[in-house]
Amino acid sequence: MGPTLRGGTADNLTELYAPVRDELSRVDALLRSQLSSSYPFVDELAKHSFRLGGKRMRPALVLLAARASGTLVEAHYTIAATVELIHTATLVHDDVLDEAKLRRHVATVNSAHDNETSVLLGDLLFAQSLCLMGELDDNRATRALGRAARQMCEGELRQIASRGNFDLNEDDYFGIIAAKTAALTAVCAQLGGLYAGADEGQCAALEGFGRELGVAFQVADDLLDLLGDEGTAGKSLGTDLVKQKLTLPLIRLLATAADSDRRAVVDAILGNGGNRREALRSWLDRSDAVAYAQQRAEAHVRRAISLLEQLPPSPARRSLQGLAEFALWRRT
Amino acid sequence: MGPTLRGGTADNLTELYAPVRDELSRVDALLRSQLSSSYPFVDELAKHSFRLGGKRMRPALVLLAARASGTLVEAHYTIAATVELIHTATLVHDDVLDEAKLRRHVATVNSAHDNETSVLLGDLLFAQSLCLMGELDDNRATRALGRAARQMCEGELRQIASRGNFDLNEDDYFGIIAAKTAALTAVCAQLGGLYAGADEGQCAALEGFGRELGVAFQVADDLLDLLGDEGTAGKSLGTDLVKQKLTLPLIRLLATAADSDRRAVVDAILGNGGNRREALRSWLDRSDAVAYAQQRAEAHVRRAISLLEQLPPSPARRSLQGLAEFALWRRT
Repeated sequence: MGPTLRGGTADNLTELYAPVRDELSRVDALLRSQLSSSYPFVDELAKHSFRLGGKRMRPALVLLAARASGTLVEAHYTIAATVELIHTATLVHDDVLDEAKLRRHVATVNSAHDNETSVLLGDLLFAQSLCLMGELDDNRATRALGRAARQMCEGELRQIASRGNFDLNEDDYFGIIAAKTAALTAVCAQLGGLYAGADEGQCAALEGFGRELGVAFQVADDLLDLLGDEGTAGKSLGTDLVKQKLTLPLIRLLATAADSDRRAVVDAILGNGGNRREALRSWLDRSDAVAYAQQRAEAHVRRAISLLEQLPPSPARRSLQGLAEFALWRRT
Repeated sequence: MGPTLRGGTADNLTELYAPVRDELSRVDALLRSQLSSSYPFVDELAKHSFRLGGKRMRPALVLLAARASGTLVEAHYTIAATVELIHTATLVHDDVLDEAKLRRHVATVNSAHDNETSVLLGDLLFAQSLCLMGELDDNRATRALGRAARQMCEGELRQIASRGNFDLNEDDYFGIIAAKTAALTAVCAQLGGLYAGADEGQCAALEGFGRELGVAFQVADDLLDLLGDEGTAGKSLGTDLVKQKLTLPLIRLLATAADSDRRAVVDAILGNGGNRREALRSWLDRSDAVAYAQQRAEAHVRRAISLLEQLPPSPARRSLQGLAEFALWRRT
């Protein structure tokens, strides 16, 4: 199974979230109040989406960054709920995209309903995040989240454009995941600092931390999609292969394969002649691709942690460090 | 064909937009600069979506409301481009929803590409609107647009929930279209006034004007979908019937049909036994349903125009009145 999946669980997260446990409960209450409607059909969908987010990593990031760099204020609750709504909107729309059948052990909106409903529910969550942003006294969060949301969409679209491109290189891959995943985690940590009154250097360090964390999480997520166990992960896996998305271990596998093997590896990725994940496993076992991807993720985690040195030591800073390390241990 | 479709054309609009012609050109330039990307695939999609909006009615509404009630300032350009981006995002997502093959004589994103791309392009346009909102000095537009966007999604979802419900009544119908269409036109006119320095009463009148206008436009749109000509309209028609969306003329037809005819009318709507629009035409010709829907639209136009009396006479106010009347004449 390789060293990627040593068993990061929800229990670890509960411990890491301890410095902001009560604050996270308030964010959940805020999300609950936002995710309701006087129309039964809409209300049912909104309540369903409340359960999709799962780990609440992005709200935790906002709150921990605030606590680690200054004063946690009212605006942080609003921002934390806002980023979770944006994240959930992308999950709902991802389920349209990936035709995934399972996510977080809860039926996807898309398999329970249809594509139309999923698209509109995602839009509703996005609109709701806009309502929350509007409640803030100033426009700094709106500006930063707009930029991040734009990058996320661009990253996803670049990924679509590169589908089936077996020449995709590491730079392209890291550019795409920096946009589609790390832009939002970067802005979570940055806004945590900004609204806590942290100085410019600390905000930049937090933004960098969030970015490195996001990249590490995405590499781990891509490894999980290739190697993980659906039962443990609680979601459909192997979807990257189905969509011919080349991820880091496969890019490495192709880059290091002998010329004479390359065609067979591409065939395994394309699923010509049987189970993709099984066929690939034997190629992966004979290469350094999984260990290499793991090492790249570790390097990003190390950079994330080194950026935290610009903040004073505190329980919240320790939790941020633990969150970065969690990326390497996650199974879900 | 009835009095609904007497031939409102793009030429009429050019005339109505005259008091803000140069300002609309600046909004178009702003949209062009927003709808570009350094990634070719993304850039092509963004540029494609620039052409989808068509009439630019919502930006015109912002600018005319501003000019009719106070001073047109820098913020109005930003808001006008923002609402057009939101509107275009909903069109792109509508094309996923309605499986429409044509819109504005341009191939839909969805028929040129796939559902995934359409969902992400709509999200990108929404994200881009957020970036623009973030450029404003304050959060009033963000707050108002968040509320409007939420209502739009709720309205669309309520419409999905009521699909195939042949007991849908007029109140339900008007509630749905007020949310899905008129919430945005209301906020366009309101924000035009708000940022122009109009007083509270004038802003409320403009909001009401935008709402009545939106309702009238939607009723006209629904009549067009039932009775219009695809070649002239430049988009797929009859999609409401395909999706079993009951619109005002059909609600009236069912409400006034003899008990013994009701089943046959429902069959015609369901398309049991041939071309829906043809089968319905013979029922509509023998009822007051089309004239009734037209009269209801006219009543909303009259209410819209009466609200304009709270503004001083001006070329811009005359254009707003003309825009409301256009709803009754539109063929596109």
